[in-house]
Amino acid sequence: MSHAPQLNLGRLRELLADQQQEQLQALLRASTPSEGARLLMRLDDAERASLFTILPAEDAAQLLNELADSQAAEVLSELPVELAAAIFECFRSNQQADLLALLPDADALLAALSPVTAQRATQLGRHSPNTAGGFMVTEFLAYSDRACVADVINALRANASKYSRWQLQYAYIVDGDRRLVGVLRLRDLLLLDDQDSLHQAMTPDPVRVPAEMPLNELTHAFDRHPYLGVPVVDAANRLLGVVLRADVEEALAEQADRRLLLVSGVLGGDEYRSMNWGDRVLRRAPWLLVSLVLSFAAASVIGLYQETLLDVIALAVFLPVISGMGGNSGNQALAVSIRELSLELVRPHETLWVVGKELIVGLTNGLLLALLVAAIAWLWKRDIRLSAVVGMAIALNISVAACLGGIVPLLLKRWRLDPALAAGPVLAAVNDMCGFLFALVLADLLIPQSSM
Amino acid sequence: MSHAPQLNLGRLRELLADQQQEQLQALLRASTPSEGARLLMRLDDAERASLFTILPAEDAAQLLNELADSQAAEVLSELPVELAAAIFECFRSNQQADLLALLPDADALLAALSPVTAQRATQLGRHSPNTAGGFMVTEFLAYSDRACVADVINALRANASKYSRWQLQYAYIVDGDRRLVGVLRLRDLLLLDDQDSLHQAMTPDPVRVPAEMPLNELTHAFDRHPYLGVPVVDAANRLLGVVLRADVEEALAEQADRRLLLVSGVLGGDEYRSMNWGDRVLRRAPWLLVSLVLSFAAASVIGLYQETLLDVIALAVFLPVISGMGGNSGNQALAVSIRELSLELVRPHETLWVVGKELIVGLTNGLLLALLVAAIAWLWKRDIRLSAVVGMAIALNISVAACLGGIVPLLLKRWRLDPALAAGPVLAAVNDMCGFLFALVLADLLIPQSSM
Repeated sequence: MSHAPQLNLGRLRELLADQQQEQLQALLRASTPSEGARLLMRLDDAERASLFTILPAEDAAQLLNELADSQAAEVLSELPVELAAAIFECFRSNQQADLLALLPDADALLAALSPVTAQRATQLGRHSPNTAGGFMVTEFLAYSDRACVADVINALRANASKYSRWQLQYAYIVDGDRRLVGVLRLRDLLLLDDQDSLHQAMTPDPVRVPAEMPLNELTHAFDRHPYLGVPVVDAANRLLGVVLRADVEEALAEQADRRLLLVSGVLGGDEYRSMNWGDRVLRRAPWLLVSLVLSFAAASVIGLYQETLLDVIALAVFLPVISGMGGNSGNQALAVSIRELSLELVRPHETLWVVGKELIVGLTNGLLLALLVAAIAWLWKRDIRLSAVVGMAIALNISVAACLGGIVPLLLKRWRLDPALAAGPVLAAVNDMCGFLFALVLADLLIPQSSM
Repeated sequence: MSHAPQLNLGRLRELLADQQQEQLQALLRASTPSEGARLLMRLDDAERASLFTILPAEDAAQLLNELADSQAAEVLSELPVELAAAIFECFRSNQQADLLALLPDADALLAALSPVTAQRATQLGRHSPNTAGGFMVTEFLAYSDRACVADVINALRANASKYSRWQLQYAYIVDGDRRLVGVLRLRDLLLLDDQDSLHQAMTPDPVRVPAEMPLNELTHAFDRHPYLGVPVVDAANRLLGVVLRADVEEALAEQADRRLLLVSGVLGGDEYRSMNWGDRVLRRAPWLLVSLVLSFAAASVIGLYQETLLDVIALAVFLPVISGMGGNSGNQALAVSIRELSLELVRPHETLWVVGKELIVGLTNGLLLALLVAAIAWLWKRDIRLSAVVGMAIALNISVAACLGGIVPLLLKRWRLDPALAAGPVLAAVNDMCGFLFALVLADLLIPQSSM
């Protein structure tokens, strides 16, 4: 937000070599967190370890906070375990659990942690990611329903410095078995008398979510209620934690980001260029291999019609255009379907509705491009049959591809797979095959052999 | 969260026809908001107007809330202006401004609104979208620095019902000219005496952001500070509103979603299948046309080498495989670059670094697939030169495509364009051209004419 002294990789390395703690700290604090994270990932392992030895644990945690969890875990696992533990203590409870799940040697770290942190992180880690339990934090206030307003105020006063970094709006009221019985907005305490009992003052039967609630239902819960945080309970209604609206929104953003990678044929959730070479190859190679097989299946259609192609070699120029246009049209429909599914604007069984909607757009665009392509063919070869073949093939392929791209994500969703698995690469190969088939079969039918 | 009575389109139409207000209201409230929104967009214009005439304005606003802004604006614009105005009054201030900007006939609506709402929405609407000013809400508490704690508590008490739906954690303290001078956490009021002056009690010089701050910098501001909301000021430090963390996270999620559509070749921000046919064609046709031109440029390479292809017709089978693999590899690199740019893990000028990182992964995968494809060619035609040509062409094309896919988004960003404009369709055509060139030039060089 202000003009910070420029931090670049060279300067960072200089300060590291000279062990200039204060200057390092000041520069990193002055740069944006993402800038610090970017530079961090440009350092090699030894430099990173040396940086974290120099920096206070709080600052190190804030830097790591900016990385993807998988990267932060990788960096932590490279550090001496005592250092890693000190940094780990500075994370929020839900991040501790997330990181712990990703660490290759979690047990060593757990042994080095304070018992409270270790136990809490282990417990939180039992909840599945992308559920309320996985998102929740344990930094919340809970008071017995037998306490009174003055008890809460005194507790807040006594822990003012600890609570100052928590995001608190509510106090949750529990009974003797830690079952959630009510909620109290902290600012409403202002309107109460010191001796009022919490039981009288609280709003009973508050909105709560079970620990197993998945991300999409959490989104609905927050859509429906204006709260910034919602309490999470177990099957016996015991209070486990609080899930914050901002964490749910953040998870949605990450999900949309990962979807882009998956649709583009990058597996494994995420890829960063700072990952090592082998990991990156592993995230890309499988999709390329699948696509290679499909692509050969498509190309074999050309092999079957080699004679036709030898007769009408001009068709070789149009084949990639026809198949490519199908691929594009399919990708467009694919993206719209993936998005509408994630927004729940379409249901997995509504394939007919989607086909209807795609067909009309596919036919319009298909006919438009067919006219163009047929005209180009005519100008080039002055052969009305060639024009007819390529025009019809392109119109058909664009329409079919739009329908396929539209419904494949729905089918995947119905089979409980990630709709984004209908990745561009796979669909493109299918559309290639259709395009080749349309063009070559039509040519075979409409263009007499050796006519050109 | 509970088992609601099933709401489906048929039942909704029935209740509408019978004007069953209470049942409609109960059913919509019981269904998830996104389910309600999905059904809403399946109704025709007349049915929608009739639904909104029956529903209370609050319920109608909640339904519209679930739609994309462009859709909500479309629905509002179909309604009688008095009805639209009544619903409009129920939105949060920042949504009112967003919708107003999208309405075709905003003036008519403004005339029907209460003067306070009309003025506020117009003022908020002056700020650019995707800036702090565009995101901020005007539902916040501000008190004079001359007031005392008791004044705030009395104000809270007097407006308890109005404030109960606001998301308040802080009171902002302003001087006589409405300049922001401090902030006070509401729950800290508990720790103060009634007669303490706000000037003494407040934290002076609070974190604040200028109204012009763009989304990515807002993200940094929230990364750096744990607050759920940050005050927005104008150039003279006058308090204008509050931007909430959840709204910023939500905007990021929407941005990532739109990126998927743009990369897939759907223009114009968003497309929903419930949009009318013409709008949907317009969002897809331009990209298809651009892609058609590029695709012909690529195919013309085949035209130039028709003779070579006639000599080695087997190559016609491999051409789509070679070009397709390049397209896939390019898309993978493209998605990683778009993501790293948006996370600011790579800077637009770091093209060399990206090329280095992509080249190593591209070469690895390229060689892997080259071996496979060369082996297939050998098994089919037993011609070592054909194997060599297709193997080399595929390795080259995969590597070049990975580099291109990696750097094109960086170049677009440098030219201040959206990196996602390097859409799959366009890049695919470029990779097609490279693939054809590699294969046909190599064949021309390595395979003597008429040898097969």
